[in-house]
Amino acid sequence: MRGNMLIAQSGGPSMVINQSLAGAVLAAKACPEIDAIYGALHGIQGIFDERFIDLRQEPDDVLLRVAQTPSSALGSVRRKPTPDDCRALFAVLAKHGVRYFFYIGGNDSAETAHIIAQEAGRQGYPLCCFHIPKTIDNDLLANDHTPGYGSAGRFVACAVRGDDLDNRALGGVKIDVIMGRNAGFLTAAAALARQDPDDGPHLVYLPERPFTLERFVADVDACMKRYGRCVLAVSEGIRGPDGRPVAEAFSTETDAHGNVQLTSAALGENLAAVIRDKLRVKRVRADTFGFIQRCFVGCVSESDAREAFQAGAEAVKAAVSGRHPGGTIALVREPGDAYAIRYEVAPLSAVAKHTREMPDAFIAPEGNHVTEAFLRYARPIVGELPPTARFEQLRR
Amino acid sequence: MRGNMLIAQSGGPSMVINQSLAGAVLAAKACPEIDAIYGALHGIQGIFDERFIDLRQEPDDVLLRVAQTPSSALGSVRRKPTPDDCRALFAVLAKHGVRYFFYIGGNDSAETAHIIAQEAGRQGYPLCCFHIPKTIDNDLLANDHTPGYGSAGRFVACAVRGDDLDNRALGGVKIDVIMGRNAGFLTAAAALARQDPDDGPHLVYLPERPFTLERFVADVDACMKRYGRCVLAVSEGIRGPDGRPVAEAFSTETDAHGNVQLTSAALGENLAAVIRDKLRVKRVRADTFGFIQRCFVGCVSESDAREAFQAGAEAVKAAVSGRHPGGTIALVREPGDAYAIRYEVAPLSAVAKHTREMPDAFIAPEGNHVTEAFLRYARPIVGELPPTARFEQLRR
Repeated sequence: MRGNMLIAQSGGPSMVINQSLAGAVLAAKACPEIDAIYGALHGIQGIFDERFIDLRQEPDDVLLRVAQTPSSALGSVRRKPTPDDCRALFAVLAKHGVRYFFYIGGNDSAETAHIIAQEAGRQGYPLCCFHIPKTIDNDLLANDHTPGYGSAGRFVACAVRGDDLDNRALGGVKIDVIMGRNAGFLTAAAALARQDPDDGPHLVYLPERPFTLERFVADVDACMKRYGRCVLAVSEGIRGPDGRPVAEAFSTETDAHGNVQLTSAALGENLAAVIRDKLRVKRVRADTFGFIQRCFVGCVSESDAREAFQAGAEAVKAAVSGRHPGGTIALVREPGDAYAIRYEVAPLSAVAKHTREMPDAFIAPEGNHVTEAFLRYARPIVGELPPTARFEQLRR
Repeated sequence: MRGNMLIAQSGGPSMVINQSLAGAVLAAKACPEIDAIYGALHGIQGIFDERFIDLRQEPDDVLLRVAQTPSSALGSVRRKPTPDDCRALFAVLAKHGVRYFFYIGGNDSAETAHIIAQEAGRQGYPLCCFHIPKTIDNDLLANDHTPGYGSAGRFVACAVRGDDLDNRALGGVKIDVIMGRNAGFLTAAAALARQDPDDGPHLVYLPERPFTLERFVADVDACMKRYGRCVLAVSEGIRGPDGRPVAEAFSTETDAHGNVQLTSAALGENLAAVIRDKLRVKRVRADTFGFIQRCFVGCVSESDAREAFQAGAEAVKAAVSGRHPGGTIALVREPGDAYAIRYEVAPLSAVAKHTREMPDAFIAPEGNHVTEAFLRYARPIVGELPPTARFEQLRR
C-alpha cells in the first residue's frame, strides 16, 4: 500500500519518546511505499485541528538532536476518541492521503490506536495503524519492558543513591515518593541504587502489595534499630488492603481516561508526619520526585535510547511489509545471560487499555522490597550508574 | 608549626563537598608539617565522640572516587559550639596532637570555625583553624561563588529545561519550587534552561523581592495569554512584603542554628491551588525538587568539581605556610571575559554567620526574572548543558 504517513505522540512524555519518533521517521524516509511524512501536534488533537508539520522538511541532524531531547517534540494529549471522533479523523486523514498512522504512547494511547483501527475497519477507511510502545511505568502487557522505563529508572536510581548518601550524612528517615499509578516497576528501580548491604533504599513499597500504616511504622522502626537511619522508596500508587490508593484521599481531579491525579507530595508529607508522631524520630524528610523523573535532561539509559529508536523503526518496517493490518511493537527479551532484545509485532488488543503489574518473583516475600531476580532483570535496562565510593574504613 | 591535622564536614551536603575533602587530604599528604591526617565523623560531633578515621590509610584511588561522590563522606552535623563545648573539643584535639583543623561548610560552619578559632585563642590552645567554603545556596560573603553551587545549579537548569519541554507537550501551568532559604541564586540558575525566547522558566521568583499573590496571579495570567502555558521557578524562601517567608505558615520545626525548616511541597501545592482558583487553568502542577538538588548522582559541573578540590588544597597550603593564624578560602573571579578563578585567604569573620543575597544587577526590574548579567555570571559556573533541540517548524 502506497500513501502518506502520519505520526503523533500521546500520554505522559518520556526521556526517549523522541527516539521512537526519529526512528520511525528515518525508517519511513527509506521506504518507497511512503510519500509525505506528517507529524500531528498534540496527538489526535492535532488531527482534529489539522495541525501537521512536514517531517521530511526537518534535516536529519535536527531529527537526531530532537531524538536526544526529553519530552514529546510534537506535543502530547490525553484524549480517547469516540466513533464520531473517528469519522472526523478519517475525513482529515483522507484529505491528506494518509494510509499509515503511528501513535507513540502507553496503554491509553494503545487503546486510542485500537479504537481508530477498529473504526477504520467499520467505517471502511483503508488505514494501517501501528502503536509504538512508550511508558515510564513499564506496565504494558506483551513487553519485557517498555521504552522510557530504562531512563526514568536510571533517574530514580541516581536520585535515590544520592539521597541515601545524603541520609548517611545527616541521619533520620527519608521518604522518596516515586511515580507509578498501578505498577511498582519505577519505584522498584530505586533498589538499583544499592551497592553495600547497609545502603538504602532499605524499604520499597509497591502498589502490588497492600500497604498498612501499622506495618509501615514497624518496618521503619526495625530499620532505625538496625542501621540508625532509614531511606524509603514509596510508590505514589500504594494501596490499602481495600485496594484504594492511599494518596486518593488528598485529591479529586481526574483525567480523560478516568485516572485520578494523585497528590503525591501530600502522600509523602503525611507518611513523614506518621513517623514523626509514632516513632519520635527528630529528622524525617519526604521528597516527591515529580515530573523530572520523566523529562530530566542528561540522564538517559543508553539501551533505552537505542531500543526506543529501534521500536519506531520496526513499526514502520512492519507497517509497509503488508503482512499486518496493524499492531504494536513488543520488546521481547532473548533467553540467556547476555542481554538482547528482539522486536515482535503483536495485535493492538494485546496492549490496549490493560496494564501489567510487577510479577511476584520480583517482590520480596515480606512485601517491602524487591528481589535479586528484579535487580537482574532491571540492571541492563537502566545501565551502569555513575561510579560512587565510600571510605574503606566506613564500610561494614 | 608541625602537628596532626583534623578535617570534618558540616551543614547540608553538596555534590562536590568531597572534592574539597580530597583536595585537602592530598595536599596534606605532600606537607612535611603535617603528620597524621584524621577525619572526624559528623562534623564537630565526631570530635566530642572521638570518632575519627585515619585518612592516610585510604588509598589515593579511593580518595579520588570518594571525591566524585555526592554528599559528605565523613558525615555531617548542624551544631554550634559553646565556649564549654570548645574546652571539651580542645581536650580531644590535644590528646590527638591536632594543630590544624579544617571545617568544610557554609556560613553556619564558618561561624563554628570562627568560634573555635576565637576560643582556641582565649583558652590558649595552639590551633590553625581553616574554613573551606561549600554551599549550594551560593550565599557566602567574600566569594564570587561557592563550591557546590555550580553543580546544584546545573541540576536545577537540567531539571527545568526538561520540565519546560514537558510543559510544552501537555500545557498548563507548572510551578517548580527550588531550594534557597535567603538567597535566590539557585532558583535563578533555572533561567539557564532557556534557549529560545518562548522557553521557560517564564517567571522566576526570588527571596530578594517581595512576593504578593496578586502580582503572582497577574504575572501568570499575562504569561498564559502570551504563550498559552507557563513554567515558574519559585524559591522556597520567597517572602511577603512583611519580610516573612510565604512557606513559614506551613511549618514550625527549627534547626540548631535557628533556621525554620520550610515545607516547600506545601508552598508549591498552595500556589498551584491559587492559580487553579483565580485563573481557572485546568492543568496546574507543582513539583518541589527537594534534596536531590544537592546530592543527585551524575550531574556535576566540571568547573565546580575542580574549584571545590582546589579550595581544599589551598586551605591546607595556606595553613602550613605559617602566614595566617586561620581563615577561609575565598573564590575570586579574575576580571575579563575569559573565566578564571583565583583563591584568596580571608578572615573567618568575613564569611561567618552572615549571608549575601543576589545583587540588584542580577534581578530584572519587574522582580520576576533574572537579567542577562546574571546569565553571563552563572554560565561558566554551571557549564554547558547537554544539547537538546526542537523541530525547526515549531520554533518561533
